[in-house]
Amino acid sequence: MPARLVALPLSAEGFAPFGDVIEDVRADTAPMNDARFERFEALCELDTDGETEVGIVRCRSATALPYRVDIVERHPLGSQAFVPLDGQRFVVAVAEPGAPPDRLHAFVSNGRQGVNYRRGTWHMPLIGLEPGQRFLVIDRQTAATNCDTHRLAEPVLLALDE
Amino acid sequence: MPARLVALPLSAEGFAPFGDVIEDVRADTAPMNDARFERFEALCELDTDGETEVGIVRCRSATALPYRVDIVERHPLGSQAFVPLDGQRFVVAVAEPGAPPDRLHAFVSNGRQGVNYRRGTWHMPLIGLEPGQRFLVIDRQTAATNCDTHRLAEPVLLALDE
Repeated sequence: MPARLVALPLSAEGFAPFGDVIEDVRADTAPMNDARFERFEALCELDTDGETEVGIVRCRSATALPYRVDIVERHPLGSQAFVPLDGQRFVVAVAEPGAPPDRLHAFVSNGRQGVNYRRGTWHMPLIGLEPGQRFLVIDRQTAATNCDTHRLAEPVLLALDE
Repeated sequence: MPARLVALPLSAEGFAPFGDVIEDVRADTAPMNDARFERFEALCELDTDGETEVGIVRCRSATALPYRVDIVERHPLGSQAFVPLDGQRFVVAVAEPGAPPDRLHAFVSNGRQGVNYRRGTWHMPLIGLEPGQRFLVIDRQTAATNCDTHRLAEPVLLALDE
C-alpha cells in the first residue's frame, strides 16, 4: 500500500519554497481605470530568460483521487505557471529545492488560485479532476529539452483531507 | 446623441489587426501528460522586451451597457493581455494601427476568450460588467511611463447587438 500524501490548502506561505501562488488576495492593490478595478501586480516571478509563452491546456481525461503518483518532472530552463480558467480546484505535488524528488508535499487550490513553479522544481505532472477544465499556462518557449522526469522509488497516494 | 458602436463577436480573424485572441479552439493541439490534456500553444505574442508581468485585476465597480466611451489609451512599451478568470463576457473597443484613435471597432468576448492588445494599440480602458469579476493581466513590467491617453473628439455609445 503506497504512503498517503494529503493535499493541504494552498497558501502563499506554504508554497513559497516551490514558487508563487497567483491570486487576488494581497492587501496592497493599486486602483486602475478610475478605481473601477483593483490591480494585484507582479503575482509571480517569470523566470524564462525573456522567452515567455502563453498557452491553454484543456483536460481530456479526468483523474480521480486518491491518485497514485509514480512520476515527477521538472523544467530546468524556466518557471511554469498554471492558472485555472474554470474556477476549478486542482491538486499539485512538489518537492523542495535540494531535497530528494521523492519527498513530496501536496496542495489543493481553491479554484481561484494559480501556481507558478519555480525553475527546476520537481512536481507531479498536471492532473485535472473533471474533463473540459482549462488552465492558462505561462512558461518558457524554447526548442531545447526542458523536461526531466524522475520515477519515484515508492509511489504515493495523493488524496484530499475530506 | 453619440454614435452607436456595436460590439461584434470576438474572433481571431476579426481581432487580428489589434492583437491575439487567447482561447482553446485551435485544431493543432499537442497532447500533454499521457494525452490527459490537450495543449494549445503560443496563443499570443508577448511583446514586452522580456519584462513580462502577471497580475490580476478585479472589478470593484461594474459598468453598464450601453456605455459612453470618451477616452482611449495605448501602451507604447508593450503588449497587454486580459484573460477572464470567472468565465465572464466582456467588451473591448480598439482602433487599427495607423488609423485615427477615434475610429473604434468593438468586440465582445464569450467569456472563454481573452485578448492580447498589440503594443501601441489604442483601446478603451477595461470595463467590467459585474463587480468581482477577475481578469488575469499579462503585460510589461516597467517603471517607465507606458500609457498614453486620447480623448475622443466625439464620444461613442458602446452596445451589444441584442
